[in-house]
Amino acid sequence: MKRFRKEDFPVSEVRRFLEPGPIVLVSSAWQGQTNIMTMGWHMVLGFTPSLVGCYIWDENHSFEMVRRSKQCVINIPTSDLINEAIGIGNCSGRTLDKFQEFGLTPVLGEKVEAPLIKECYANFECRLAEGSMISKWGLFIWEVVKAHVAISPRYPETFHYRGDGVFMISGRSINLSRKFTPEML
Amino acid sequence: MKRFRKEDFPVSEVRRFLEPGPIVLVSSAWQGQTNIMTMGWHMVLGFTPSLVGCYIWDENHSFEMVRRSKQCVINIPTSDLINEAIGIGNCSGRTLDKFQEFGLTPVLGEKVEAPLIKECYANFECRLAEGSMISKWGLFIWEVVKAHVAISPRYPETFHYRGDGVFMISGRSINLSRKFTPEML
Repeated sequence: MKRFRKEDFPVSEVRRFLEPGPIVLVSSAWQGQTNIMTMGWHMVLGFTPSLVGCYIWDENHSFEMVRRSKQCVINIPTSDLINEAIGIGNCSGRTLDKFQEFGLTPVLGEKVEAPLIKECYANFECRLAEGSMISKWGLFIWEVVKAHVAISPRYPETFHYRGDGVFMISGRSINLSRKFTPEML
Repeated sequence: MKRFRKEDFPVSEVRRFLEPGPIVLVSSAWQGQTNIMTMGWHMVLGFTPSLVGCYIWDENHSFEMVRRSKQCVINIPTSDLINEAIGIGNCSGRTLDKFQEFGLTPVLGEKVEAPLIKECYANFECRLAEGSMISKWGLFIWEVVKAHVAISPRYPETFHYRGDGVFMISGRSINLSRKFTPEML
């Protein structure tokens, strides 16, 4: 697995990695147990504060862990971790330790108890900003309170889910900033 | 611009096109006026009913149009429309007709008043499912009530926004369904 050297990154700019829509790994901790889930249903909701919405199914073991702890880490895996992401989605933290099972390394967070996944390209420490839509819509709104991002490459190769076991691998980047009016950048 | 031949598509399967996280065009109609906005902040929230959440800034001209009409169409543009999408994001429907300005063709919806954009790969007609998070969070929850999708190609080449004028173009698809447990598919 890749080893990334990471630096602190402005929380207001995490949209660079989330808005393109990759599969993310959500790590959590609650009452001495940790867990990881694979997630594709998320969206950016603001820059300052840095807000992210996500849907978590209440049947997932992570659901109660993040709801009760009011914290999680959103980790961005690169395409070399695609089999691990599928495996993590295929089993439940009720019956096994996913860090151990998939050879991933938990790293202590700075602002939350939930562990960062060392092998991921980026780690966003999150605190619950709004929980009132959880019971009706499964919708959590998180504030990213600390971001750790690999120094290189500038844009990671991520994987994006289409359903039915099919993934899209992120392709080339193009800079079209010259076509934007200044206030749109 | 491309011409797509489209067919009805199951609304429960629109995640195939939305979950990978592309930039979409949101079209609307209100009091005889139509409009289009470019949007990157959206997420899937359910299959049946087919639910999509999205964030719309209250400064956008489309905000009041979709809030009042309680309808919109989410259109999926392919990468050949990237300049149009930027242009649509750079100007306001307050002062011009975006269909005319960008040479796009409005097509009558079947279940909503908002027009479909003919030149897009797919068109999802939406009705507002929940409006109670609009004022505090800018968050609309839509039910996709009718989907029109191009017959070919199976997976469109979409563009995904990273901020700062930089886009990611969707890359190759890989089928890893053999690695999923049956109930996860």
